[in-house]
Amino acid sequence: MEVGFLGLGIMGKAMATNLLRHGYRVTVWNRTLAKCQELVALGATVGETPAAVVAKCRYTIAMLSDPGAALSVVFDKDGVLEQIGDGKGYIDMSTVDAATSSKIDEAVKQKGGAFVEAPVSGSKKPAEDGQLVILAAGDKTLYDEMVPAFDVLGKKSFFLGEIGNGAKMKLVVNMIMGSMMNSLSEGLSLADKSGLSPQTLLDVLDLGAIANPMFKLKGPAMLQGSYNPAFPLKHQQKDMRLALALGDENAVSMPVSAAANEAFKKARSLGLGDLDFSAVYEVVKDASGSGQA
Amino acid sequence: MEVGFLGLGIMGKAMATNLLRHGYRVTVWNRTLAKCQELVALGATVGETPAAVVAKCRYTIAMLSDPGAALSVVFDKDGVLEQIGDGKGYIDMSTVDAATSSKIDEAVKQKGGAFVEAPVSGSKKPAEDGQLVILAAGDKTLYDEMVPAFDVLGKKSFFLGEIGNGAKMKLVVNMIMGSMMNSLSEGLSLADKSGLSPQTLLDVLDLGAIANPMFKLKGPAMLQGSYNPAFPLKHQQKDMRLALALGDENAVSMPVSAAANEAFKKARSLGLGDLDFSAVYEVVKDASGSGQA
Amino acid sequence: MEVGFLGLGIMGKAMATNLLRHGYRVTVWNRTLAKCQELVALGATVGETPAAVVAKCRYTIAMLSDPGAALSVVFDKDGVLEQIGDGKGYIDMSTVDAATSSKIDEAVKQKGGAFVEAPVSGSKKPAEDGQLVILAAGDKTLYDEMVPAFDVLGKKSFFLGEIGNGAKMKLVVNMIMGSMMNSLSEGLSLADKSGLSPQTLLDVLDLGAIANPMFKLKGPAMLQGSYNPAFPLKHQQKDMRLALALGDENAVSMPVSAAANEAFKKARSLGLGDLDFSAVYEVVKDASGSGQA
Amino acid sequence: MEVGFLGLGIMGKAMATNLLRHGYRVTVWNRTLAKCQELVALGATVGETPAAVVAKCRYTIAMLSDPGAALSVVFDKDGVLEQIGDGKGYIDMSTVDAATSSKIDEAVKQKGGAFVEAPVSGSKKPAEDGQLVILAAGDKTLYDEMVPAFDVLGKKSFFLGEIGNGAKMKLVVNMIMGSMMNSLSEGLSLADKSGLSPQTLLDVLDLGAIANPMFKLKGPAMLQGSYNPAFPLKHQQKDMRLALALGDENAVSMPVSAAANEAFKKARSLGLGDLDFSAVYEVVKDASGSGQA
Repeated sequence: MEVGFLGLGIMGKAMATNLLRHGYRVTVWNRTLAKCQELVALGATVGETPAAVVAKCRYTIAMLSDPGAALSVVFDKDGVLEQIGDGKGYIDMSTVDAATSSKIDEAVKQKGGAFVEAPVSGSKKPAEDGQLVILAAGDKTLYDEMVPAFDVLGKKSFFLGEIGNGAKMKLVVNMIMGSMMNSLSEGLSLADKSGLSPQTLLDVLDLGAIANPMFKLKGPAMLQGSYNPAFPLKHQQKDMRLALALGDENAVSMPVSAAANEAFKKARSLGLGDLDFSAVYEVVKDASGSGQA
Repeated sequence: MEVGFLGLGIMGKAMATNLLRHGYRVTVWNRTLAKCQELVALGATVGETPAAVVAKCRYTIAMLSDPGAALSVVFDKDGVLEQIGDGKGYIDMSTVDAATSSKIDEAVKQKGGAFVEAPVSGSKKPAEDGQLVILAAGDKTLYDEMVPAFDVLGKKSFFLGEIGNGAKMKLVVNMIMGSMMNSLSEGLSLADKSGLSPQTLLDVLDLGAIANPMFKLKGPAMLQGSYNPAFPLKHQQKDMRLALALGDENAVSMPVSAAANEAFKKARSLGLGDLDFSAVYEVVKDASGSGQA
Repeated sequence: MEVGFLGLGIMGKAMATNLLRHGYRVTVWNRTLAKCQELVALGATVGETPAAVVAKCRYTIAMLSDPGAALSVVFDKDGVLEQIGDGKGYIDMSTVDAATSSKIDEAVKQKGGAFVEAPVSGSKKPAEDGQLVILAAGDKTLYDEMVPAFDVLGKKSFFLGEIGNGAKMKLVVNMIMGSMMNSLSEGLSLADKSGLSPQTLLDVLDLGAIANPMFKLKGPAMLQGSYNPAFPLKHQQKDMRLALALGDENAVSMPVSAAANEAFKKARSLGLGDLDFSAVYEVVKDASGSGQA
Repeated sequence: MEVGFLGLGIMGKAMATNLLRHGYRVTVWNRTLAKCQELVALGATVGETPAAVVAKCRYTIAMLSDPGAALSVVFDKDGVLEQIGDGKGYIDMSTVDAATSSKIDEAVKQKGGAFVEAPVSGSKKPAEDGQLVILAAGDKTLYDEMVPAFDVLGKKSFFLGEIGNGAKMKLVVNMIMGSMMNSLSEGLSLADKSGLSPQTLLDVLDLGAIANPMFKLKGPAMLQGSYNPAFPLKHQQKDMRLALALGDENAVSMPVSAAANEAFKKARSLGLGDLDFSAVYEVVKDASGSGQA
């Protein structure tokens, strides 16, 4: 099977590599073409432009850094739109908002092409190991045709229905994650101020019904005040804001998420926005009386 | 090794059974003595009163339903105090507040005995499987002597220092658990009202960084509106109230836990207190609209 | 002094009437011209179109129902833009969002005219009595020229600086009002469930440091479950959402307002959006155990 | 008329002074007797102990800092109980919880005395001006006898029925007040960060439907960061804690009050507990990004 692949950043490179390793013929493109050489060494062909890749391949996957990049690859000169059409499918696996996704969807469909949005949960390591979780939505036929490729890229893919649902599902997951990070921070802080060892709390949590990889991974780093940004706090807060806005549209009252969002806003206001989202622990701690706040 | 065991409720019966299976000689007592027969069939001896059990055994473990029961077994006529003394140890594994624990501790020590509070995390199934997590505090020497028995009853035991710390650690864990249950409920509700499948949300959560046994176990039941009480909501709310009170003593600001507590209070007010604590989903759902939204 | 007046709804009619009573020469326009007759009887002249009014008057005031009406009166055929220009001032006293205001401001300035946004706080009665509070922003020179007219229409006018600040000030005021309405509802509910008379609570509040016209006016009606919409709940919730969004832009953490907003969202979800915003009391009451929720 | 007065803190001193000014003969006692001198200068007599005051006076009023002080003045050596009895009345105007009040009530009645709890709403200034609001409950006959004195101390007194209701009403009022103070703080902070003048916000508020003496009195001081304790923040937070506990007993869900309480706890944790409760503005401001927090 032949696929095009647009965008060879950390994620894209790992994903395209997995496709090649599993016998796919892959035509790659990247804004800085030099980055394509590593994949050529693994058997990839290079396309000069997104349009050229789409012209050559029936299916083209994109993995780009942000909504801006996702839009320009489609709408700019030599972009996807110039060659997309009947019988061709475009799959954008970048993380973008529902609005961006819809814009691309409409444009591709107008040209007669098929579109699937398929944002992933999981970062570098899962991408390399083909262990991503894929949240797909849009053209069901195209999704079905892509399943073999998704099986190479991820441990599981979901078809969520209409365009926008992939983005929405990510927001809901991140909203829960954000509230849980606040719950952990409050618990660690309460333990600390109550004469219990926060590290022992982490050990106890890890043996019980609410043990989860995030507590296990982030907890010890939080106790050391180390917040290297795997997922920047300002992005977490943005996702919570969008999730609450989605709840507002649908009149869903979510007081716990709203309280967590205010704590993230406070962290932003204290200049912690570029640290990992677990840095919300700093404001919970301060709030509980180090007196440094 | 010979141990006494007071209280043969769901938890106590399972724990005493494990001790017998591992070759302990166990003398059991229960307020309704009939309940002792099942354990006699497994080789247990029966004590007529708590005092009789303590008289016979060097170590006596108690697993009782609430603070009231924990106090009366110690202080009432024919209670533990009548026979406790030098060289004897009393281990209360019931879930009680720090004040109750301290009262028992002082009385036992005054008689020359040693006391350990050892509340557990985990309910019926882990009790049967010897997979409890034991949160012990009090007399370190007695704790060390009990480690072999704790290894039979649980997968891990912690010694947390002074009396009261066992109870406090449980409150912190349950507070985090309660906030997480609200986060899940809000997420399921948001998914539902936003046109996403709540069941798919559970599937996605279970593959990601916040996957945890509680979501996996409770989630599907919540979607079916089934709330058989493994841990009654009114007890969860009581623990959140006590955790918030502990935070108040130590001036720990915990807005997310406070919001979660109010949701549990609302559930109580709607008559859901005797259902499982996951029934808070019912009020989150209601809050998000009988569909008129 | 001669002024034009566009929009003769409940508010506009009362305001134009006050201007006539104070000796202003007023040229009025209304989408349904019939409505102009009452004011003609008081000495007003009629303008056939917004453009005609602006052509005739140096200053034109608008009081329209919503952003849509505010925009069409300016941008549609025969609209304000066709005649506005050097030496002419346009004053929009409608309640609109900052974006609408900015759009009108830019268009008017491009034509060489001057613009002031001047939303008011206060409804029918204060409008009739010339007791409005006027929240003006935009062209300071025009504002200064309008002060005599503002003194006729209101008991006080404020100049708040750049365009948009009038709308922002209203959001902040309404946000505080919404939180206060929730505080009152929680207090009435707590009194009721605790065996105190909610009516006595209102009497006590009215004598103390937090006595305010809103509690005095709304409280007794709330106890009777009467919620005739002076200010619809869905509009209150919309203003709280916008105020929280403004806070988000500026990283202002506002946990109390966020909690209040969630309560209003819950009320919306229960179908109370078209009642007065004091109907949030219904959900607070339900939450506190009528069991009807 | 002769009355005893126990406790000469900020409130007690102002109240005793008013009684003297209105021709009451007042025998005062204070834990640190030195504090009595100012009142002696105004004509007061000093009692060496609470018991001595009660022995001398038919009616004894107490105004103490907290439940601990209220109890010790009654039950300790040389306390009220030693001299209270038939024909003597004891009126505790301190703000205490219902349990404390009941304990005192039972003890006083057992000795044959009469008891009224009469907590007040209003702080230093109203106390000085005799403008307190008095929330009385307990012995109706004693209440009726005290009305003339209550008329000196306050502008209005309410008889609320059984012992405990005075304390409960006070808690409800203070809970609403505490939420309102947070609402104002959030609004001032939002105005400030959004480019509006917080002082203008105060001016606008004072002209509208939520204008109230507290905003008018505290607002300007808050903007100057001046927090002379009329009502210490730690007492406000204690009252909110007790009000929330009352709500818990009765399963009243109060998310807005709970969020406000967490903000006051944070202020306490930052060492602001002894400042006026309006100092919660400091933590809201910090939370909203001065970057100094």
